[in-house]
Amino acid sequence: MEPIEQSFAVKFRYGVYFTQGLFDPENTVLTDVLQQDKGTGPRKVFFVIDRGVAVAHPHLTQAIKSYAAKHSDIIRLLADPLVITGGEEVKNSIPLLQQLLEAVNTHRIDRHAYFIAIGGGAVLDMAGFAAAIAHRGIRHIRIPTTVLAQDDSAVGVKNSFNFFGKKNFLGTFVPPFAVINDSDFLLTLDDRDWRAGISEAIKVALIKDAAFYNQIKQDAAKLALRDLPAMQRLIHRCAEMHVQHIGGADPFESGSSRPLDFGHWAAHKLEQLTHYSLRHGEAVAIGMALDVTYSMLDGRLTEAECEDVLELLEELGFDLYVPALSQTEPGSEQLSVIKGLQEFREHLGGQLTIMLLNRIGEGVEVHHIEEPLVLQAVNLLKKRHQHQPAANL
Amino acid sequence: MEPIEQSFAVKFRYGVYFTQGLFDPENTVLTDVLQQDKGTGPRKVFFVIDRGVAVAHPHLTQAIKSYAAKHSDIIRLLADPLVITGGEEVKNSIPLLQQLLEAVNTHRIDRHAYFIAIGGGAVLDMAGFAAAIAHRGIRHIRIPTTVLAQDDSAVGVKNSFNFFGKKNFLGTFVPPFAVINDSDFLLTLDDRDWRAGISEAIKVALIKDAAFYNQIKQDAAKLALRDLPAMQRLIHRCAEMHVQHIGGADPFESGSSRPLDFGHWAAHKLEQLTHYSLRHGEAVAIGMALDVTYSMLDGRLTEAECEDVLELLEELGFDLYVPALSQTEPGSEQLSVIKGLQEFREHLGGQLTIMLLNRIGEGVEVHHIEEPLVLQAVNLLKKRHQHQPAANL
Repeated sequence: MEPIEQSFAVKFRYGVYFTQGLFDPENTVLTDVLQQDKGTGPRKVFFVIDRGVAVAHPHLTQAIKSYAAKHSDIIRLLADPLVITGGEEVKNSIPLLQQLLEAVNTHRIDRHAYFIAIGGGAVLDMAGFAAAIAHRGIRHIRIPTTVLAQDDSAVGVKNSFNFFGKKNFLGTFVPPFAVINDSDFLLTLDDRDWRAGISEAIKVALIKDAAFYNQIKQDAAKLALRDLPAMQRLIHRCAEMHVQHIGGADPFESGSSRPLDFGHWAAHKLEQLTHYSLRHGEAVAIGMALDVTYSMLDGRLTEAECEDVLELLEELGFDLYVPALSQTEPGSEQLSVIKGLQEFREHLGGQLTIMLLNRIGEGVEVHHIEEPLVLQAVNLLKKRHQHQPAANL
Repeated sequence: MEPIEQSFAVKFRYGVYFTQGLFDPENTVLTDVLQQDKGTGPRKVFFVIDRGVAVAHPHLTQAIKSYAAKHSDIIRLLADPLVITGGEEVKNSIPLLQQLLEAVNTHRIDRHAYFIAIGGGAVLDMAGFAAAIAHRGIRHIRIPTTVLAQDDSAVGVKNSFNFFGKKNFLGTFVPPFAVINDSDFLLTLDDRDWRAGISEAIKVALIKDAAFYNQIKQDAAKLALRDLPAMQRLIHRCAEMHVQHIGGADPFESGSSRPLDFGHWAAHKLEQLTHYSLRHGEAVAIGMALDVTYSMLDGRLTEAECEDVLELLEELGFDLYVPALSQTEPGSEQLSVIKGLQEFREHLGGQLTIMLLNRIGEGVEVHHIEEPLVLQAVNLLKKRHQHQPAANL
């Protein structure tokens, strides 16, 4: 009998919106977003809030309730906002994931209701995963509160949960209904979280946009002093580049490369080796320092370019070395980060594909990494670190 | 700052293939499918087998190993096939789901490897869910072994897992890499599983294709006597109609209707009320009998058409009534199946949308169901049942 051929295309669309004072009574960003569904009557809405955000913004829950009451023609809260623990560790917690799914069940959150999460990347990753698998996908709006989430992780199409001790072992590709960046949330970040997200902007500038790299250099002193307009500029351009990239050739990563993940193969492993005491963005800064140094040792980047990048990272307050970078596997002389290379390939599948730099603003994909050069790069960063003043951590 | 607009389309493509003797050494259906990935060298492959199938086909595991050995240029088994328990109950088992995910982890099944499941709908639903969420989606090939899975559930884009005692509470929309229907597996089905899948073919014929309905009527005696060519015809046309429907307007069901789910609102509830002692297809036959009778009482269908459908179902051996159909909610006179209406709406979200019949071959969507008419339809089916000879269950 003849085979049956199936072939179709699914269109996806979402916006990333920028505002301040999202829950001020007169702010219509959220109500405008909700009305994009072309529905009528009050939309059923449920909020999940990262505990860290709720503590830093003690009036947030009340502000949301007042906002919903004022806009009751558009918003109907299915329940009071649910406050859950944040931080990368939560992505390992099956009870927390189950708590989110129970909220979907208890409050009868259906495919046409809105599951809105406010928080850092970990809470958004986990809440997005719960929203993606409940009823085969309920509408999910992300309100990221950290620099990293606003400029990178929350504007994309991925969600995730850690399993078997492996970062993002579980997850799906499901675009959000919308992303709303409220820069007021940045004001209460601690210095580490303010800084950490900058590394993703440097990453995307290094591999794709020399002009953006120069802009970040120009703004570096301001960024280090927590200047909000400089940060807003950085976040907008970084988010824009991410959105453009995702909308490009392979949104759901069916190939074996991940062109935006410069500096990430070592970063993922360093997070795991330090039991997530390193923030993701801090680990990416170290991973980039490693790959920039490797690109120089490999003859792709000049020493001056390499030094330029390392100095920018240092000016922003990043530490470029942690002892875990030199850690070896038990009973072996192999660096543990090298094992991360293997795990990185496995997660993506197919051929090993790593991004290096040909010059600032131009990445290049390679399929082989020389272990001795990695060791040499690690040792250069270690030596540099020993001659630096104490880090800003 | 300006919003950033994201917009892209993702293309999906897969084939549904028909064969006999899939693992005969000379059969190239599977090796041809694997080579669609345009890769080179042996593909990493892992098999999961429904225990019921493994018992009915005691040489299957060895046949797969021999097949892989003969085609070692194209297939590399990552491990021996994993045999797991089948049946709807497994979709409630978190340990079983975890076992599948552990296999992905242990055998390093990556996004470019193949996770192939052989079995009935429940095993395929659960294996598909595991494949969809591991590494954000690994390649999944379905080899359905029941009539129901071959003509309906396995040819689509859904996977699922039961949670909080609710059928398919978890799941995703993710197309398979391919579906391969081997009709040899049908030969060892028991009579209930042979019969149960026929109801999905009648369903799709009733709402869309009067000619197919007449074909099934013509073949009814043969189907009841387990004639394989008649069943192959039925499966091919039913699968084709499903594939066409999915490739139509709303593959991932973002709207609030589910036009193919004729007879399903009551069926889902009956499965739950009978603790899954009713097969899904058996429950669908009762659900269709209910909705056909309702359509007649509602003035849409003539009595003769209604009788025609009920007689066809009976000729094929379906029982059109179970006591659970008359069951009421504790402390209430409301039929429990009516509560199923509410759960059906909740699962899909949005407005209640139920398919009824205007005539044989033409479905119509309604947004309101009259409870007294449902009760009347239930009572008609009950009375008919009391005057019938013992059912074939």
